[in-house]
Amino acid sequence: MSAAGGKFAARRAGLLARLEPGSVVYLATAPESVRNGDSDYPYRHDSSFYYLTGFPEPESALVLVAASGDQPSRAILFCREKNVEREIWDGLRHGPEAARAEFGVDAAYPIAMLDEKMAEVLAGAPALYCRLARDEGLDGQLRRWFDGVRARGRTGIVAPPALRDLVPLVDEMRVVKDAGEQATMLRAGQISAAAHRRAMRAARSGVFEYELEAELLYEFRKSGAQFPAYTPIVASGANSCILHYNSNDRQTRDGDLVLIDAGCELDGYASDITRTFPVNGRFSAPQRELYDIVLAAQAAAFEAIRPGNTFHAAHDAAVRVLAQGMLDTGLLNRDTAGSLDDVIANKAYTAFYMHGTSHWLGMDVHDTGAYRLTDHPDKPSRPLAEGMVLTVEPGIYVRPAPGVPEQYWNIGIRIEDDVVVAAGAPRVLTDEVPKTVDDIERLMAEGS
Amino acid sequence: MSAAGGKFAARRAGLLARLEPGSVVYLATAPESVRNGDSDYPYRHDSSFYYLTGFPEPESALVLVAASGDQPSRAILFCREKNVEREIWDGLRHGPEAARAEFGVDAAYPIAMLDEKMAEVLAGAPALYCRLARDEGLDGQLRRWFDGVRARGRTGIVAPPALRDLVPLVDEMRVVKDAGEQATMLRAGQISAAAHRRAMRAARSGVFEYELEAELLYEFRKSGAQFPAYTPIVASGANSCILHYNSNDRQTRDGDLVLIDAGCELDGYASDITRTFPVNGRFSAPQRELYDIVLAAQAAAFEAIRPGNTFHAAHDAAVRVLAQGMLDTGLLNRDTAGSLDDVIANKAYTAFYMHGTSHWLGMDVHDTGAYRLTDHPDKPSRPLAEGMVLTVEPGIYVRPAPGVPEQYWNIGIRIEDDVVVAAGAPRVLTDEVPKTVDDIERLMAEGS
Amino acid sequence: MSAAGGKFAARRAGLLARLEPGSVVYLATAPESVRNGDSDYPYRHDSSFYYLTGFPEPESALVLVAASGDQPSRAILFCREKNVEREIWDGLRHGPEAARAEFGVDAAYPIAMLDEKMAEVLAGAPALYCRLARDEGLDGQLRRWFDGVRARGRTGIVAPPALRDLVPLVDEMRVVKDAGEQATMLRAGQISAAAHRRAMRAARSGVFEYELEAELLYEFRKSGAQFPAYTPIVASGANSCILHYNSNDRQTRDGDLVLIDAGCELDGYASDITRTFPVNGRFSAPQRELYDIVLAAQAAAFEAIRPGNTFHAAHDAAVRVLAQGMLDTGLLNRDTAGSLDDVIANKAYTAFYMHGTSHWLGMDVHDTGAYRLTDHPDKPSRPLAEGMVLTVEPGIYVRPAPGVPEQYWNIGIRIEDDVVVAAGAPRVLTDEVPKTVDDIERLMAEGS
Amino acid sequence: MSAAGGKFAARRAGLLARLEPGSVVYLATAPESVRNGDSDYPYRHDSSFYYLTGFPEPESALVLVAASGDQPSRAILFCREKNVEREIWDGLRHGPEAARAEFGVDAAYPIAMLDEKMAEVLAGAPALYCRLARDEGLDGQLRRWFDGVRARGRTGIVAPPALRDLVPLVDEMRVVKDAGEQATMLRAGQISAAAHRRAMRAARSGVFEYELEAELLYEFRKSGAQFPAYTPIVASGANSCILHYNSNDRQTRDGDLVLIDAGCELDGYASDITRTFPVNGRFSAPQRELYDIVLAAQAAAFEAIRPGNTFHAAHDAAVRVLAQGMLDTGLLNRDTAGSLDDVIANKAYTAFYMHGTSHWLGMDVHDTGAYRLTDHPDKPSRPLAEGMVLTVEPGIYVRPAPGVPEQYWNIGIRIEDDVVVAAGAPRVLTDEVPKTVDDIERLMAEGS
Ligand SMILES: [Mn+2]
Ligand SMILES: [Mn+2]
Ligand SMILES: [Mn+2]
Ligand SMILES: [Mn+2]
Repeated sequence: MSAAGGKFAARRAGLLARLEPGSVVYLATAPESVRNGDSDYPYRHDSSFYYLTGFPEPESALVLVAASGDQPSRAILFCREKNVEREIWDGLRHGPEAARAEFGVDAAYPIAMLDEKMAEVLAGAPALYCRLARDEGLDGQLRRWFDGVRARGRTGIVAPPALRDLVPLVDEMRVVKDAGEQATMLRAGQISAAAHRRAMRAARSGVFEYELEAELLYEFRKSGAQFPAYTPIVASGANSCILHYNSNDRQTRDGDLVLIDAGCELDGYASDITRTFPVNGRFSAPQRELYDIVLAAQAAAFEAIRPGNTFHAAHDAAVRVLAQGMLDTGLLNRDTAGSLDDVIANKAYTAFYMHGTSHWLGMDVHDTGAYRLTDHPDKPSRPLAEGMVLTVEPGIYVRPAPGVPEQYWNIGIRIEDDVVVAAGAPRVLTDEVPKTVDDIERLMAEGS
Repeated sequence: MSAAGGKFAARRAGLLARLEPGSVVYLATAPESVRNGDSDYPYRHDSSFYYLTGFPEPESALVLVAASGDQPSRAILFCREKNVEREIWDGLRHGPEAARAEFGVDAAYPIAMLDEKMAEVLAGAPALYCRLARDEGLDGQLRRWFDGVRARGRTGIVAPPALRDLVPLVDEMRVVKDAGEQATMLRAGQISAAAHRRAMRAARSGVFEYELEAELLYEFRKSGAQFPAYTPIVASGANSCILHYNSNDRQTRDGDLVLIDAGCELDGYASDITRTFPVNGRFSAPQRELYDIVLAAQAAAFEAIRPGNTFHAAHDAAVRVLAQGMLDTGLLNRDTAGSLDDVIANKAYTAFYMHGTSHWLGMDVHDTGAYRLTDHPDKPSRPLAEGMVLTVEPGIYVRPAPGVPEQYWNIGIRIEDDVVVAAGAPRVLTDEVPKTVDDIERLMAEGS
Repeated sequence: MSAAGGKFAARRAGLLARLEPGSVVYLATAPESVRNGDSDYPYRHDSSFYYLTGFPEPESALVLVAASGDQPSRAILFCREKNVEREIWDGLRHGPEAARAEFGVDAAYPIAMLDEKMAEVLAGAPALYCRLARDEGLDGQLRRWFDGVRARGRTGIVAPPALRDLVPLVDEMRVVKDAGEQATMLRAGQISAAAHRRAMRAARSGVFEYELEAELLYEFRKSGAQFPAYTPIVASGANSCILHYNSNDRQTRDGDLVLIDAGCELDGYASDITRTFPVNGRFSAPQRELYDIVLAAQAAAFEAIRPGNTFHAAHDAAVRVLAQGMLDTGLLNRDTAGSLDDVIANKAYTAFYMHGTSHWLGMDVHDTGAYRLTDHPDKPSRPLAEGMVLTVEPGIYVRPAPGVPEQYWNIGIRIEDDVVVAAGAPRVLTDEVPKTVDDIERLMAEGS
Repeated sequence: MSAAGGKFAARRAGLLARLEPGSVVYLATAPESVRNGDSDYPYRHDSSFYYLTGFPEPESALVLVAASGDQPSRAILFCREKNVEREIWDGLRHGPEAARAEFGVDAAYPIAMLDEKMAEVLAGAPALYCRLARDEGLDGQLRRWFDGVRARGRTGIVAPPALRDLVPLVDEMRVVKDAGEQATMLRAGQISAAAHRRAMRAARSGVFEYELEAELLYEFRKSGAQFPAYTPIVASGANSCILHYNSNDRQTRDGDLVLIDAGCELDGYASDITRTFPVNGRFSAPQRELYDIVLAAQAAAFEAIRPGNTFHAAHDAAVRVLAQGMLDTGLLNRDTAGSLDDVIANKAYTAFYMHGTSHWLGMDVHDTGAYRLTDHPDKPSRPLAEGMVLTVEPGIYVRPAPGVPEQYWNIGIRIEDDVVVAAGAPRVLTDEVPKTVDDIERLMAEGS
């Protein structure tokens, strides 16, 4: 087994330790996905499958059998067979033999043998852990596998009496990132930060949004990141008020703000940075006014991110600063909206801040893991723990509307960084890109 | 609740007592089934659904919620709505309101509300018990229901982390029949016995097999049985060697044996009788010779049916008598087949006796329930207990073949009765139809 | 080829003559259908498949290839393979070799070879005629077959550019019955008539509905009919007003009418008779009054059934008599319902006569074939032609309701016969069962 | 209607002109495709849907009704409704009203009304043109729509008797590109050429393959191209012999060749260029030797691309040059492989050139359209016509193998350009990137 393989074996062992003895796990990776004609999108593995195997190829699946009595646990990988002809066309495949050695599994078989092996493995197992009630394709496989076992019912062989959901188990394992994962995510954050700096330096009035996107893509790939972690948002002018805008085809104008929300995916881990800056290099007074509110909200949120604090504490802290700013600037009218506490209680601030402040970050941009204590009847917010990684991304978005001060119209601002929950203050993975007004203006003045 | 309703409520309570607190049960009844054009087969409910509800209509489903904390358990029935227009055409429907009252459930809703209610009921439940990995239609419903719950994931609401197989639980409940079930099955056995007697009396050389079937059908329905429990087998001459023969369109000839395997279904419970008799009313010598072996085998099997004896003991006892008979008659050649123990050890008897001696009998002809201890690694045969109902049906079937004495060719004999395991000898439900050679000949001599 | 085979070959030739040269037909027979547990309903073939093949086994399919250029047409049957082991259990199978000879097809293959052969047959065919957009299972097969052909696209091989609906083509062939079909249907009608007579003779106050059903079932099967053509309706008292009532479990009372709608299926052809009679053998005055109206309506309908008359003319004639009767008896109030023409124009009669008077009859009870000229923009009623077979079944059903004369409450009457359109008056297939009040009373007086 | 809308309306008219009067067309655009977690891949419309509508949003469908009698033809667009709340999150939607105006259709409805409208449109239509036997989802819709129409069968309304394949019709329309399409494809070719030049200039020994990919991505997006038309191939050293290599993660070494196969997609149209160059800027003698053979093969292929010549003539011409080169260099041994004609006849050249020389290019990289005359029994190669666009991409790939001269091992070369078939020589869309050895070395010497 390779050194890397040991990491994945340890994760599989961690999972197996939580399972009923003798039970079975089945997890397939993601399918290939057609883009147009006979062209596929660039292949992306399933995050949880990769988390447990490190195996990058499509058409593969992992089967685990938990230890039972004196039977040790087993990890079995199913994958594509070696095929010289296909490999000339499509690239190398590990094949079962090499995969077994490199990825540290106990056995590996061609994927075509899956049905046959599952019928063996499931006979008499107390439970099958899988993606429960999610995939039509898997449901069909399960019926076939279970029918196969049940056909032997006269002999006393029984199919598993339970299907259990594998998803929350692996999801929760993924919430806390180990040192290796944090290192990868730091490197991803640094690459994304460099990309944002490059885009800022390249900005000037009249540039097209996609030209700035090109700077991001360049820096990502040049630095070895395989993909954008999500479709980059380069939103200028009024577009900055559309949260997931990504057509990126508008020509900027002098006086616009540009909101860029973009991060790379490096070795399967996402980063996620948003910065907002004036395309001409100088914030106007109203832009700066709102910007500083958002920045203060982010600072307040950082203060709330401590082990033991709840996940939602950062959001509450950010909202308090943002709501106060909305009252101070007149975005919210004190006469109608009332006090700060009123604004918070009746959620009046959602007119200008309608999204959450944080999400888990990891292999997926919106990474897995619960945000509340699902076992508790009141579903309270979940306490943070060291090693959890989340974004902090307050914002203010002002669309034209009656009663809203016109100087703020079409200003959309978001400032987003990625942090690791740590003993004291959180560790920021993405601080290599400026975010104060002064620092941004200074960088932009340098040019590209 | 009706008195009958109480019986079903007690069964539901028995089931609920075995479940994890707060978990949910979902069980739909059987669909209607097209025969040809726009004609359906006569509707038959799902046995387990009926066992738990007594509700006879299609398009209905039972949902149970196990008690949890101070929440009592709940039984919810989903059924067709009242609809005067449809009822003029298709007959009365209970409708939710009347169904709730009559069948003793806690709530009843139109089946169209199933999705909505399941989304409520499943939220936070620890498990859903259902027909696991069996029905494509249910799998699609589950994905929809679970998706609905999961869409609320940000609030901490979770979908059940486990699907559990309801089938073995209800199957095992059904293995032991209560007094009411036994009474129904006795009445079913009596009706079927009368039908067999009627067919025997109607037999004469030259009769068509279907004419004898007509006698059976008449007696079944005349006596109030709703249906044949399975397609009747009226197999004369060589047809008697085809185990599930049922075209029943041959004209008998003098000298033929007729094997009739037929039983009625009364109020949802099956009976299952086989008798074999000479169409002309007199057994020939070779017919009688083999017949007496089979009858002795059945007697030996009866002796082995005692509480605590294994399910397979009756088969073993029957096989021993049959095998000895095969050796005695020369069906098996001692020179090549060896001793009785050899014949048993190497299963040489399966040339003439290729099926098992017993099956569970109840709502289904091949009723539910394990035949072996599935939890035991060696899967030993299961001990019998009072109240279990099973068939006892040894047979001999001699197709023409080299080395087989020609006088036995095309003789197929099976003698089948239904018994309840009881403290001493089993209680025979179907003894009102003769089975000794003499008794049969005497009855047939009476004529119809 | 057997003589019977020639009949089916002629039908296939008739179908092929209507198809585009070189095009392909695919038609599978019906699947087996589970009743409960591991018991199936008695197998029923697909009517159109049987119409074209005469082949009775499940798991079979017919493929036709229309002649093209110098290639003659071909008929290919796919069926179960011979299998001695399975045949001991389940009965004989023809197997491809014998099936080819007996059913007169050009080739026969095991059903397992279907995919392979379809990929050959479909390559380059101009169209595939099949059951269009009806069966999920077929749709999956088609995608597989077409994908197989399309995979060879680089070589210029193409999949059929059109799927055409086979159903209306065969449906229309089936509308006109040939002499052989008419002979079978006459025999079916005679058997059903005998069954109705037997039930009438067995009737007496206090008999259960199912006891009368037993008489029907007996006569059907005794006479060699394989099945009831549909679930028999034995509806006494108020049940007679439920059109498709079939629980048949009520005990009759003196003074009840009994409506029996039942017919046998003989060799794949249905009959369909309804008679209504007093359980005690004597019509009451109000019963007789309404009965005679219905009988007169049927007579009027017969008069309208002539070649060239429209299908709906019989219904219109019956309605006119029924509506007049409703006015005459006060079922409809002249003051509120107006004149006869008013009653017809505003369909007031549908309060007591809510169904159509006729349907096609043949292999299916509601047999195939259009009732209107579908090609015509106005969709006029279709002209009758010799050899068409239809039912004639007027009725009156009086449920208790305010304003309805109480002496008629719970009287439901239907009189139904099966007729062949012929040169003059239609030929009645079911006239061996009495239908005048006097004839019925006379028969019932004879007793059983 | 916008000017652009007119172009699409003309295409729809062209399609409608080929259809049976009154028939219906249904074509949905592509679905959104999940990449990982809740992140989608960048949305890509279906090419043929876009070809006929220009409509860029997911969840939309086009329905056409061909003119019939005095009913004019109709174009109906189904799309997402306006939804302010969703648009704040996900971006603007046209909505039916604006879509109708901008895209020049006769009517537009919310996609939720599709089922309702299809039931209307299909009633009585002679045929439905759709993606035939390709999509499980569509098959389910068709069954639903047809069932809806058939439920009205008693009224004489009928569902379409035929489904016809829309795909080949639109595919063939797309084969010949109009002036507007050619202009877009020229611009796409120019952008891709600039990207290749940029990558060449950035190359140096030790650069990672992905660094060169970054140069391509940058130039594509900077120039306004929305996407790579396919996953770029940057294959150095031995990787150049894997035809669709795209992990692009190897570090180059001095002496390597780099094969780059990459093109942008601009406004829905693909370009497709391959160049092969020495990473250190100077071809070695064996590299140059093979390179010049491939370049000569491409030149020969260009000569064969003339209106009226067959599609495969270019391939044949290229193969002849390549095969001669293989013999001249000793890649193929004259003693064993024989003469040039032998090598061609027995396809010995496929050891080093195993792919075709050309494919159609357009909205899809492997664009739609037949390569052979599918109507002709012999399936001959198709004649070229002006306006067709295809690639010309000969290559030589030498993997290490016994008997193959070692100086050529691991050399993979492909030279690919995009051409429009024109009156004389084809018009090359991608000639702004050098391809002679001298031109390449000169450009690389300039550096970046
Ligand atoms: Mn984010
Ligand atoms: Mn039995
Ligand atoms: Mn009828
Ligand atoms: Mn290409």
